[in-house]
Amino acid sequence: MIAEIVTVGTEILMGNIINTNAAYLAKKCAQVGLDMYHQTVIGDNKERLRETIKTALDRSDIIFLTGGLGPTDDDITKEVTAQVFGLSLYEDTHTKERIEDYFQNIKAKIVTNNNWKQALVPEGAFVVDNHNGTAPGLIIEEKGKMAILLPGPPGELKPMMEEAIIPYLEKKQPEKFYSQMVKVLSVGESRVETLIKDLIEKQSNPTIAPYAKIGEVHLRVTAKARDAEEAKQLMAPIIKELEERFGDNIYTTKEEVTLEEEIVRLLKEKNLKVTFAESCTAGLLAGRLVNVPGASSVFEEGFITYSNEAKNKMIGVSTNTLEAHGAVSHETAKEMALGAAKKANAEAAVSITGIAGPQGGTKEKPVGLVYIGVKVLDSIETREYHFTGNRTKNRESAVVKGLTFLRERLLQVK
Amino acid sequence: MIAEIVTVGTEILMGNIINTNAAYLAKKCAQVGLDMYHQTVIGDNKERLRETIKTALDRSDIIFLTGGLGPTDDDITKEVTAQVFGLSLYEDTHTKERIEDYFQNIKAKIVTNNNWKQALVPEGAFVVDNHNGTAPGLIIEEKGKMAILLPGPPGELKPMMEEAIIPYLEKKQPEKFYSQMVKVLSVGESRVETLIKDLIEKQSNPTIAPYAKIGEVHLRVTAKARDAEEAKQLMAPIIKELEERFGDNIYTTKEEVTLEEEIVRLLKEKNLKVTFAESCTAGLLAGRLVNVPGASSVFEEGFITYSNEAKNKMIGVSTNTLEAHGAVSHETAKEMALGAAKKANAEAAVSITGIAGPQGGTKEKPVGLVYIGVKVLDSIETREYHFTGNRTKNRESAVVKGLTFLRERLLQVK
Repeated sequence: MIAEIVTVGTEILMGNIINTNAAYLAKKCAQVGLDMYHQTVIGDNKERLRETIKTALDRSDIIFLTGGLGPTDDDITKEVTAQVFGLSLYEDTHTKERIEDYFQNIKAKIVTNNNWKQALVPEGAFVVDNHNGTAPGLIIEEKGKMAILLPGPPGELKPMMEEAIIPYLEKKQPEKFYSQMVKVLSVGESRVETLIKDLIEKQSNPTIAPYAKIGEVHLRVTAKARDAEEAKQLMAPIIKELEERFGDNIYTTKEEVTLEEEIVRLLKEKNLKVTFAESCTAGLLAGRLVNVPGASSVFEEGFITYSNEAKNKMIGVSTNTLEAHGAVSHETAKEMALGAAKKANAEAAVSITGIAGPQGGTKEKPVGLVYIGVKVLDSIETREYHFTGNRTKNRESAVVKGLTFLRERLLQVK
Repeated sequence: MIAEIVTVGTEILMGNIINTNAAYLAKKCAQVGLDMYHQTVIGDNKERLRETIKTALDRSDIIFLTGGLGPTDDDITKEVTAQVFGLSLYEDTHTKERIEDYFQNIKAKIVTNNNWKQALVPEGAFVVDNHNGTAPGLIIEEKGKMAILLPGPPGELKPMMEEAIIPYLEKKQPEKFYSQMVKVLSVGESRVETLIKDLIEKQSNPTIAPYAKIGEVHLRVTAKARDAEEAKQLMAPIIKELEERFGDNIYTTKEEVTLEEEIVRLLKEKNLKVTFAESCTAGLLAGRLVNVPGASSVFEEGFITYSNEAKNKMIGVSTNTLEAHGAVSHETAKEMALGAAKKANAEAAVSITGIAGPQGGTKEKPVGLVYIGVKVLDSIETREYHFTGNRTKNRESAVVKGLTFLRERLLQVK
């Protein structure tokens, strides 16, 4: 069955609110096995809303309409939808009582009359109680089509979906979508796509879709199946094939695992502590590792050495090195990693020194040039990177490459 | 003129990515005085995309199409749009060279053939260089209609809008929207709204719209005017009124100025150097200050002291204090700020120590409890904060409060 989302609200149309409801609903639709080809945003305008609903009903089986169910004059979704279906509205006693209870509960002193408009429902519609607000949800089923009306505030829409709408839809759908994420490092998006072109072309169930992230490409493998077990069996050969093609560049096949979590896991497994010496990233690398709850078991301290003097004073980079090769060099990156590891008494260390921009670049050392050093036990290696983004993007790229490089060396520890 | 946004991409349609581009573009359209009645999301499907573009061209003057300009087979936006306009594609030499340069700059070893697809442009189209990626933007103008094609990644789309598309559109519009941003610290969103309710209610031109950020509320004042001068005159009384109501809590009235930039400016003005001692934020505070190009004139080094031992060893927090009061306490925050300032030889220091969660909380010291210390010249003060978000949000809140607190103390320096 084909679903479609119509978001009603001028504040979304004007860009004052980001349409997170559509993303949420789209995900849920995929999970209950509904296909989706269109999403629309429309303002609080009767004529355009009517046109939009008609078009949606022509091409889809289920329309989700969100927003415009409240008490004010520009809340028109219910009225217009009922009109398109040719249904009249009546006052639903149960909903009216629920709204009265709601206002009593929040000890409202003044309840304006327009609130009772929310107790009007289209004849034959299934009324879904709203436990977090006043406007009820509504399911209209007529002539093989379904319209699901939900309030706009995510705090009302989401519980209603989870508690009532999804169970309702699941009963109608024998097959659902299940997905798994294969996260790939060190290979650019277009190269990834070339490497799996044959798999993408012959795909039907499961499918593979690549998503580019900073320094990573995520491959979402999605299977349509009756249950999780069947989905797993369908996906297994594809996951295996991807693992063969990308090898160690895959750091996880779990959606919820982040790169920093995988690093913390590896450090724990190898029983190593890590430290960081950061110049242009100035704490972002350490800050990212500490995203992981429990990072304290592998990380105790880090050094933000932004000036040359700090590099010398805090972690013992020699002034000779700084003068002869500059702060942005293989040599400085090497001494930063070694010095930080020693100071922090850590077995592993990552150093980052570079020119984030927009100023500070020269012909020999342009903006975007970054050196990263990684020490793990007795080995030390430094690498040169060239990033081409703005200051923020270059610093974020350096952080991801620092983590990627560290992971690579950790994998070599027996 | 009426604009419309068509977002192309199955990952948006499936809810895997939130459509922040549409909100961004909608705001920019409002600012250049374009009306907007429809936004659509569509997958990577030629037939449906063709239908969507045709419908959009029927009812709107300008269509923004985002996404689907990349190198792979499912990038179809350019091909389908050119087809609808009846234009053929040719290889643009300038774009081809730019793509070659791009790959040379990033020292790409393998450039797959599909990349050259991005150098194909529709005849007569205006080509907009992409300084942050390979796919160029395109403006097609035919028979009184305009299609603007932009790459999907926000890091490519936004700079292209700001640098090329907005100036291009502004030339075509007689009355434009101008806006100014009043950025308020230390006052919650609902309190801000209550304090300016009267101003919002009587507004027409200019208007005021509040946006809640972590630890900040931004008030956008927007005027419709023929030129910047007229807009400025319209906005001046409102800005003055807001300044009277919020006083020192306003840190800037300029859209482009960030809190960290204002801090760097104040430090330069007072001729002070700052350092940071971070526990739960682990580098995020320093990392944020260094967002500002030229931060090196006020910041040289910082300390990430995640463990108790690091707090003692790196910046001299006494083991007595740590034992008697714990790492998360007024006393530790105080010694961290004092110790860091001394070690870094800086006149100002900010320390942060807290329980970010989800583990580590107790009845006495719950998750979200954070102490921040600020030393400026001879004064030292510590404050207690209670945040109620998840780990990420608590750490971000602590960073903003650290900057806010530091600003407050810097304002007192004569």
